[in-house]
Amino acid sequence: MFNMLKKMKTIVIGKAIKSAESESEKYSVLWGLPVLSSDAVSSVSYACEEILMVLVPVLGIASYKPLMGIAAAIIGMLFILAFSYRQTIECYPQGGGSYRVASENLGRLPGLVAAASLSIDYVLTVAVSTCSGTAAITSAFPQALPFRVEITLFLILLLTIGNLRGLRESSILFGIPTYLFIFSIVAMIATGLVKVFVLGQVPPPADGLPPQTQDITVLLFLKAFSSGCTALTGVEAVSDGVPNFKAPSQKNAKRVLALLASLVFIIFSGVCYLASIYKVAHRENVTVVSQIASKVFGPGSAMFFTVQATTAMILIMAANTAFADLPLLLSFLAKDGFVARSFGSRGTRLSFSNGIMLLFLLSSGLVIIFKAETHLLIPLYAVGVFLSFTLSQTGMFKRWITHRQGNWKHKAVINGFGAFMAAITCVIIAVSKFVNGAWIVLICIPTLVVFMLFIRKHYDKVRDNLAIEESSSDLIVKNPPENYILLPVQSINKSFIKALNYAMTLGKKIEVYHVSTNKEEAEKLKVRFRQLGLDFPLVIEEAPYRNINETLLAHVDKEQARLKKHEMLTVVLPQFVIPKWWHYTLHNQTSLRLKSALVKRRNVAVVTIPYIINE
Amino acid sequence: MFNMLKKMKTIVIGKAIKSAESESEKYSVLWGLPVLSSDAVSSVSYACEEILMVLVPVLGIASYKPLMGIAAAIIGMLFILAFSYRQTIECYPQGGGSYRVASENLGRLPGLVAAASLSIDYVLTVAVSTCSGTAAITSAFPQALPFRVEITLFLILLLTIGNLRGLRESSILFGIPTYLFIFSIVAMIATGLVKVFVLGQVPPPADGLPPQTQDITVLLFLKAFSSGCTALTGVEAVSDGVPNFKAPSQKNAKRVLALLASLVFIIFSGVCYLASIYKVAHRENVTVVSQIASKVFGPGSAMFFTVQATTAMILIMAANTAFADLPLLLSFLAKDGFVARSFGSRGTRLSFSNGIMLLFLLSSGLVIIFKAETHLLIPLYAVGVFLSFTLSQTGMFKRWITHRQGNWKHKAVINGFGAFMAAITCVIIAVSKFVNGAWIVLICIPTLVVFMLFIRKHYDKVRDNLAIEESSSDLIVKNPPENYILLPVQSINKSFIKALNYAMTLGKKIEVYHVSTNKEEAEKLKVRFRQLGLDFPLVIEEAPYRNINETLLAHVDKEQARLKKHEMLTVVLPQFVIPKWWHYTLHNQTSLRLKSALVKRRNVAVVTIPYIINE
Repeated sequence: MFNMLKKMKTIVIGKAIKSAESESEKYSVLWGLPVLSSDAVSSVSYACEEILMVLVPVLGIASYKPLMGIAAAIIGMLFILAFSYRQTIECYPQGGGSYRVASENLGRLPGLVAAASLSIDYVLTVAVSTCSGTAAITSAFPQALPFRVEITLFLILLLTIGNLRGLRESSILFGIPTYLFIFSIVAMIATGLVKVFVLGQVPPPADGLPPQTQDITVLLFLKAFSSGCTALTGVEAVSDGVPNFKAPSQKNAKRVLALLASLVFIIFSGVCYLASIYKVAHRENVTVVSQIASKVFGPGSAMFFTVQATTAMILIMAANTAFADLPLLLSFLAKDGFVARSFGSRGTRLSFSNGIMLLFLLSSGLVIIFKAETHLLIPLYAVGVFLSFTLSQTGMFKRWITHRQGNWKHKAVINGFGAFMAAITCVIIAVSKFVNGAWIVLICIPTLVVFMLFIRKHYDKVRDNLAIEESSSDLIVKNPPENYILLPVQSINKSFIKALNYAMTLGKKIEVYHVSTNKEEAEKLKVRFRQLGLDFPLVIEEAPYRNINETLLAHVDKEQARLKKHEMLTVVLPQFVIPKWWHYTLHNQTSLRLKSALVKRRNVAVVTIPYIINE
Repeated sequence: MFNMLKKMKTIVIGKAIKSAESESEKYSVLWGLPVLSSDAVSSVSYACEEILMVLVPVLGIASYKPLMGIAAAIIGMLFILAFSYRQTIECYPQGGGSYRVASENLGRLPGLVAAASLSIDYVLTVAVSTCSGTAAITSAFPQALPFRVEITLFLILLLTIGNLRGLRESSILFGIPTYLFIFSIVAMIATGLVKVFVLGQVPPPADGLPPQTQDITVLLFLKAFSSGCTALTGVEAVSDGVPNFKAPSQKNAKRVLALLASLVFIIFSGVCYLASIYKVAHRENVTVVSQIASKVFGPGSAMFFTVQATTAMILIMAANTAFADLPLLLSFLAKDGFVARSFGSRGTRLSFSNGIMLLFLLSSGLVIIFKAETHLLIPLYAVGVFLSFTLSQTGMFKRWITHRQGNWKHKAVINGFGAFMAAITCVIIAVSKFVNGAWIVLICIPTLVVFMLFIRKHYDKVRDNLAIEESSSDLIVKNPPENYILLPVQSINKSFIKALNYAMTLGKKIEVYHVSTNKEEAEKLKVRFRQLGLDFPLVIEEAPYRNINETLLAHVDKEQARLKKHEMLTVVLPQFVIPKWWHYTLHNQTSLRLKSALVKRRNVAVVTIPYIINE
């Protein structure tokens, strides 16, 4: 049974990898780019759509000029962030996630706020990206629509397994689709531009756009802007992952960041531009990118399906960014004692398996609760990202003006401006998306922070309890006291005899103890015990309420109370071991419960003596 | 947490009862009758309906003459069974369930077949009766129809709690509704007969009966007969429960059996007769009894609702018969080692709580699977009952002709005739209901029997393994060998020091052992260990795959292989104890897994040394 599970694990996850092989599992620029950029690059496939969803119902045909303005604002924001994070990479060769930057420069609380908001966003990234990936699939194959949730869950499962297998394999597995997406979407943009500008093809008139009911307002602009800001999620991924790059890791990371920013710029502006030329609007169950592809390449053409397929893939790979980063963030938090320590240990394949499993559970839960509806999840999304941008950039700014090293004034301006813009954007998003779901995130972040502080407090307590203050050799008891041994007996059989023989190796002060629920059986036991010819007593106590364990525990407590300093009461428990696990269901589990109760008693040592039953 | 659960248990289940109080928890005739008869008495409320469901679609208005014929046949069967079981009570003062009678007189296999079929039927009794009870409720209040499953599950839960509380309380709690049902249904029958015969009221003409499409055939008659045989389920309950009666228990049991047979006779024949006079047929969502009550007392009258309410109650109480009997049967089987021993031990309230819980789970499962549809469950029902009747009566017959005591010829004839009739009925039911679901039961019975034989085999193996053949004092090792002690260490802290001090009380041959996943930490550990100034070694082994437990276990196996006869390796494990259970989620559970692996090793004693963390 257990061996079968183990074999299955090896098949699914792969063979164990030595700790020393750690170095070879790192990213080159070529494979690091797709793994770390897929989140940022893929978000164009829904960011443009989200902007249009705000504008079109109100502005109708007049939506496309503001669209380009908003796209320009977002791209401006992109470059501010890219320059800011470039500086983070320089200062943090060990990985400059928002959590580290904020906590080192601003203190524990801002660090935890950044960590909490990032964690929430990683979970949302997985949910949003896989749901959008499914939407791309169902745009091409509407007959798959009823199985939306199942498809999405299956995708998350695939990602989980891929990531449990480890880093390098995942970078190749997940890198190729990202490149395919980039090539096909750039081909789409280029073809579209050539058709319009070189061949002079006039796009067909817009069909079914609603009438314009009002002019563009500041509020509408800001609302659309905050919807589009989802395009910028994932920009921080590179600076988080610096130590995952091959040496020279900082240089490679900076190259990847520059490539990433350029890609987002080209793809996002290209898609928005084509959307405005073809006057594309959100339609139920057909994505904006899918409409553009259909207009550029013709509906049902091979290239249309290529764009759909690669869009689906890149979105799924975007979720992979979170699978690379959340477990890493959790491992940092675990090292600092803010989450359970188990998130800090690597699995058999060197990946942080517990973090990966947690992400799997949480994101699947979200997909089920929100029924794989991307548009319901998006409003929860960007607040946390920009909150962590703000904290991280503020941290960098503080760092420059504190340390004042090198070209610090120039650099402080860049990070300061980044922080300022991110803060404003964060407020815009929080306010304009508040009722749509941002409130959930604004409740979750402080809750998580409080939770993490509690965990840290617990770990501190445990450390204080275990720490040795005195000279440690003083703690050793020079003349070990004699052992008091209690040996509970149910009936006199081979298992009991084995335990008895063992007990006699421990010392002379042995008491055999029986809790009786049946007088006749107790009498028989007495006779059989006398036949053994031992020189220590059999104590029999009655349990009129048949509560054997409680009676025994009360006796143990009485004995325990008599102990002097450094003395321990040793309870020897015979336990029979059955080869097949399901056989245990046929035997009372009272001894298990007894053991867990005994082990909570300060001066009681519990010894288990196995007796193996042969089948 | 644990204390809270315990308090809740006391509130729901009641305070613990002493074993010695057992005697006072028994039935008088007055309270034994309702508890043991509710199954048999209540079945009239669906038996008549099941017969009409077979006849009316084919015979239409001509159904009612055959109905009375079938009712007569079933009542004949009832008296045969009553006389047969009377003899069982005489011979089995300790309770003569089919299991005991069949296994004592016919052998192990027939006994287990009887036990398996009875067990299945008890589960079905709970499911069928609570579903019918719910049907009575929804006949009066159709608006409750959509919550059929929920209502049924709630009823089963109430029964479970009531039974967990113990015997006497349940007999009063469940007895009153049975009496109320008996009085109201007898009142209904009497009123109907007076109206027709004394007042000469002509019943209104039958409405909406289908036309007669064929004449009555033998096949149709037998099919209807087997449907109606559900009326006879529960007759054996009294003879099973003889030891539950107050002294003189056999006399009281016989009285209750006679009363039970008379009641079933009066109520079943009365209801069938009124059904034939009023020409009542099965209607969707309105039961036959409810239609009769409405015609006798007028729809919406107080007495109509009384009949509905008490019918619902008696049906629920019928399920209670199974709650009284299945746990008792399981306790017999447990004593003989055919099911898990835990079914043989009484809970804090002296009821067989494990059997009650199992019945709760299985019957709830059936209700959910069959969506609380009585008519789908009924075909599964009667086969098992009549199979166990047959085996039990055959057993009694065999007993008379073997022992040949007293008036044995006369008594053998009665039981032989009972066995013969029960066997014929069983075959009729199995054949005519085969495709409707009886096949499920005919698969389940042999499966259960094989399962029980496997369990017995396991218990036999365990007993043989533990039994002491030699003179038991020879098994005791006269000169206890010295202990080998292995003390794994993670880091040197107070918990380790406590374990170390304890280890030194056990012997001199101590080895401190560390599995290293990090060279620097291992070096630090070495230094700190040297500072303790001890005269035994620290062994450090590296685990390149980070598999600490496996490395340790391999080391233990190596050490174990070196042991001589009677020598044991003692592994001392420090374990820290945290006051709040949820704190355990913050600590690695590796030591738990380690312990369960260590305890499977024949010559390894595992000692747990607690270190309590103060909050």
